[in-house]
Amino acid sequence: MGTKLYKNGYPVLGYWGKQLGWHRRPDLPNSKQPSIETIVQTPRLEVQRLGFAPSSRYEVLGPAFAYLDLFVTEGRLRASIDFGFKTEVCELELGSQMRLYPNSHLCIEPISNTAQMFVARVAEFETRTELNPSRFYQDLNTDWSLISSPATMNLSALSDLASSVIANSIDSLSPKFMNQLYSGVIPHAIIADNIRSQTKTTLAIQEASPVFSQIEVALTEAICQLIGWSCGTSDGISVPGGTFGNFMALHCARIRKWPEGKSKGFFGKPARIYVSSEAHYSFKKGALALGFGIDNIVEIATDEHGKMIVSQLAATIANDKRSGFVPLLVGATAGTTVQGAFDPLEEIARLCQSEGIWFHVDAAWGCPALFSKKLKHLVVGIEAADSVTFDAHKFFASSLTATLFLTKHKSLLLEANDVAGGDYLFHNNTPESDRGRLTWQCGRGPDLLAFWLLWKHLGLQGLSEVVDHFLVIQQECVKWIQTQQRLKLMHQPEYLNLCVEVLHPQMKTDNEWSAKVRRVLKAKNQAFVNYSTNSEGVTFLRLILVHPHISVQNILDILNDALSVTVDDVNKNSLAAT
Amino acid sequence: MGTKLYKNGYPVLGYWGKQLGWHRRPDLPNSKQPSIETIVQTPRLEVQRLGFAPSSRYEVLGPAFAYLDLFVTEGRLRASIDFGFKTEVCELELGSQMRLYPNSHLCIEPISNTAQMFVARVAEFETRTELNPSRFYQDLNTDWSLISSPATMNLSALSDLASSVIANSIDSLSPKFMNQLYSGVIPHAIIADNIRSQTKTTLAIQEASPVFSQIEVALTEAICQLIGWSCGTSDGISVPGGTFGNFMALHCARIRKWPEGKSKGFFGKPARIYVSSEAHYSFKKGALALGFGIDNIVEIATDEHGKMIVSQLAATIANDKRSGFVPLLVGATAGTTVQGAFDPLEEIARLCQSEGIWFHVDAAWGCPALFSKKLKHLVVGIEAADSVTFDAHKFFASSLTATLFLTKHKSLLLEANDVAGGDYLFHNNTPESDRGRLTWQCGRGPDLLAFWLLWKHLGLQGLSEVVDHFLVIQQECVKWIQTQQRLKLMHQPEYLNLCVEVLHPQMKTDNEWSAKVRRVLKAKNQAFVNYSTNSEGVTFLRLILVHPHISVQNILDILNDALSVTVDDVNKNSLAAT
Repeated sequence: MGTKLYKNGYPVLGYWGKQLGWHRRPDLPNSKQPSIETIVQTPRLEVQRLGFAPSSRYEVLGPAFAYLDLFVTEGRLRASIDFGFKTEVCELELGSQMRLYPNSHLCIEPISNTAQMFVARVAEFETRTELNPSRFYQDLNTDWSLISSPATMNLSALSDLASSVIANSIDSLSPKFMNQLYSGVIPHAIIADNIRSQTKTTLAIQEASPVFSQIEVALTEAICQLIGWSCGTSDGISVPGGTFGNFMALHCARIRKWPEGKSKGFFGKPARIYVSSEAHYSFKKGALALGFGIDNIVEIATDEHGKMIVSQLAATIANDKRSGFVPLLVGATAGTTVQGAFDPLEEIARLCQSEGIWFHVDAAWGCPALFSKKLKHLVVGIEAADSVTFDAHKFFASSLTATLFLTKHKSLLLEANDVAGGDYLFHNNTPESDRGRLTWQCGRGPDLLAFWLLWKHLGLQGLSEVVDHFLVIQQECVKWIQTQQRLKLMHQPEYLNLCVEVLHPQMKTDNEWSAKVRRVLKAKNQAFVNYSTNSEGVTFLRLILVHPHISVQNILDILNDALSVTVDDVNKNSLAAT
Repeated sequence: MGTKLYKNGYPVLGYWGKQLGWHRRPDLPNSKQPSIETIVQTPRLEVQRLGFAPSSRYEVLGPAFAYLDLFVTEGRLRASIDFGFKTEVCELELGSQMRLYPNSHLCIEPISNTAQMFVARVAEFETRTELNPSRFYQDLNTDWSLISSPATMNLSALSDLASSVIANSIDSLSPKFMNQLYSGVIPHAIIADNIRSQTKTTLAIQEASPVFSQIEVALTEAICQLIGWSCGTSDGISVPGGTFGNFMALHCARIRKWPEGKSKGFFGKPARIYVSSEAHYSFKKGALALGFGIDNIVEIATDEHGKMIVSQLAATIANDKRSGFVPLLVGATAGTTVQGAFDPLEEIARLCQSEGIWFHVDAAWGCPALFSKKLKHLVVGIEAADSVTFDAHKFFASSLTATLFLTKHKSLLLEANDVAGGDYLFHNNTPESDRGRLTWQCGRGPDLLAFWLLWKHLGLQGLSEVVDHFLVIQQECVKWIQTQQRLKLMHQPEYLNLCVEVLHPQMKTDNEWSAKVRRVLKAKNQAFVNYSTNSEGVTFLRLILVHPHISVQNILDILNDALSVTVDDVNKNSLAAT
């Protein structure tokens, strides 16, 4: 079997997205290298035939943006596929085909005297190797509008158009994209999205989605168990994004407090909701949409680690009660957006319990802590929560969106969400089987399929190892950052966010320097990272460890590039931007 | 060029999903038929090589559930691809590859002396040819749960599992699936979903989605123009399903009425919302979620055509005002779920205007009427609407969900939805470019890509012809139904819903007979259609014309099967169900 050169991160060959294709083995003499014969090459299409000598071993990198189809046309081959998270070995017989998904990597060797493969890939999908969105604005050839576009288009033009969409989109499959709390996808997501298109259905009724309804229940049960709730009394439902997870928490809390509001409305109920000042803005959107009013979201200050100060929470609640407000819900955050901080769940739980307040945990970003023994301490107390938001499109690299809202009050989802008037649709005698009754959406796809496949593939232990692996990367990055005079960690990370201020090359005071560096990195197509500003107005880069194949080297590359940014670069960049 | 035998509907060869593969030409003698040599066949894999004589012409049906990859390994071929909506012709050179998506159809002929193709398809994706969900319950081999599942799984087992997911899912790509207001997908949806997975992004910020943000704007502008609004003053945003389109209407109407509620909440605002008794239940969900209370959704009676009676609406509003309620919004329906009825938009518009009430049109199902000259009269008055819900996953066969919420009050989306606290994310100086500020969701994928591709492909005129084509099918079906003694049209359809009561074989009075027939059709795997019950308790089948390749014959087949159901069938079926 071929040596595995490509592990999580690929330090030897760098960023694979730019190195698509067959690679020569550096450890073999020229005479033993493969001969790659390109049979034909058109702008959109590339078909190759590859012959193997008996002793050859080759590595092929998976396509970044398309399937790579391999057909064995002579002899037999042994293949080792690296999923990043896991490696699989299989034998390929004459005539067999293998489909290699993006983000997977293959090492092949012949096991018969001669062997030959036929390789086909749609080259049109592979032009997107840049991070720079500025290219988009220079793309004068593509007309995105519909009003001014020609009446009709042939297949070839349509195909070019699809290519333009990809070519001009941001390369979020690169490990150097980390502007959002997602980066890259697992192959399972590509497969799941394909299954999704081809089994088009809604999870509203069991009749239309017998499998997906069960998968939703299976994932719900498994995660509830991780949280520490018992299966019989808890439930969950997929919602379109973490924002709606937090909306549903507000909704359930309100209905539970005032069940009559379901029919009568909530007029005259001045409820208050408490979150930390580092919480996600979706709580405000929820207060706005559900009619609480944004002013009734009360932001509690955080300590130097970005965690909610519980004594201040207690004091605020007491004060609000005296003023006639009804404290309805505390929304704790497990893994804040910028710092990756975990609120003290146990203390908050105790307070909520004694006050009779709904305790919600927004674990959209921090949910991997449920899987890892090394991180479990961060979410101690979550078992006391009334509800939890869980995202699989962030750390677990599913397609957007893949969110579960979970609650330990099983019957509440039906009580809070079932309405009359769906008789044309809901014919089932056991209403909870028709899971559309448990939520707002009617049409609802199998968002969680990719994560379910990943869990089936790796098992709980495997998922736990993945999280632990990322912690090792974090620790090594921190160690290196601390050796750098011009890099300043904004806080000691307990999770996967690295907040780093880049100091001015001449060590001048410039609070905006990191923001400037960020823009140069992006303009130079070196990295697409986000920045934030602390309470003193100091900007800093926020690097996140989330891409399934990220390596320490990727982070070091980004930070080294950040350190190399000069005053001149910044000036040129601001000129270009104007 | 080969004769096109396979048009929209395939009357000659029937339901293509079951007839995957190469087909012999009935008009050629045996000596001229192709020789199909199966090189190798494994359980999961099938690779074929096909040789062509110079004069041969063959038809190949697109794969139902996977890509079909065709490689020209000798000579040149001419191909004609039938997309159902449109036919394209192209030449395939030696070495070129063609990817055939589900729901597309190919006719090929050689244009050199000899020609050969290499065909590969992943057979595992092609087991799902049944409609019968009962098979699912007999599937004792698949363990869907995660808690009891083994710790880990190899690739082959994972692949089997993915196959099981498909095999046990409902065959919604069959034109005989019409239980929901969707059926089938356009190839553009498969392509779009693939692009979506591989350009994983959120439309929250322009930086992360330069192309998709523009596509959203392009579609919004084009549809606003169809509605009759001017581009500069209207706007729209994709939301996760028609339900959320209706939610957003309630939200915008409320914020516009009471702008201070954004920060203060809506306590003490007893608002009322008016919809017809045939409106979608999502309005009730909206009243529940947004805190209006379900009782404040007032259902207005409909006439014999299923249309809201405007005089009753006016009387109810006047009465509510006297009682101290604030009439906030009228939600008219363009295309009701069961009957496909269109409320009288012009009259409702006039009333709303004189009363100062927000006028919303739920056109989730009826939006194709905007495209067709023949149906445009049904939506006259929509130009006076304050907002519209538009679904592309119903008639236009995109993947679920693909919804646009549109409003003619351009600045309102930002006013109603922008909150502070997203500073880590929204760095843009022109807030409306970061489209996450205009809505609730943070993570939000390019739901509308498939419909945008379809529009680009066919043009406005092409989309119009598609809708007209479906009207012809409707008229032919109606004509046939009227010749049948035991079929009773519940109403003369003006749109694409066919509501048909099947009378008892012995013409006995049995209001439940159609519901029983529906269950037998499903159990026998003949069709998966929905039924409903009218105000007299009479059940009837609801057939919908929505599958991109549906034919008159498909409908006739279903109804003939329905007529063939015997009392014995019904008895056996209820025994089996117990």
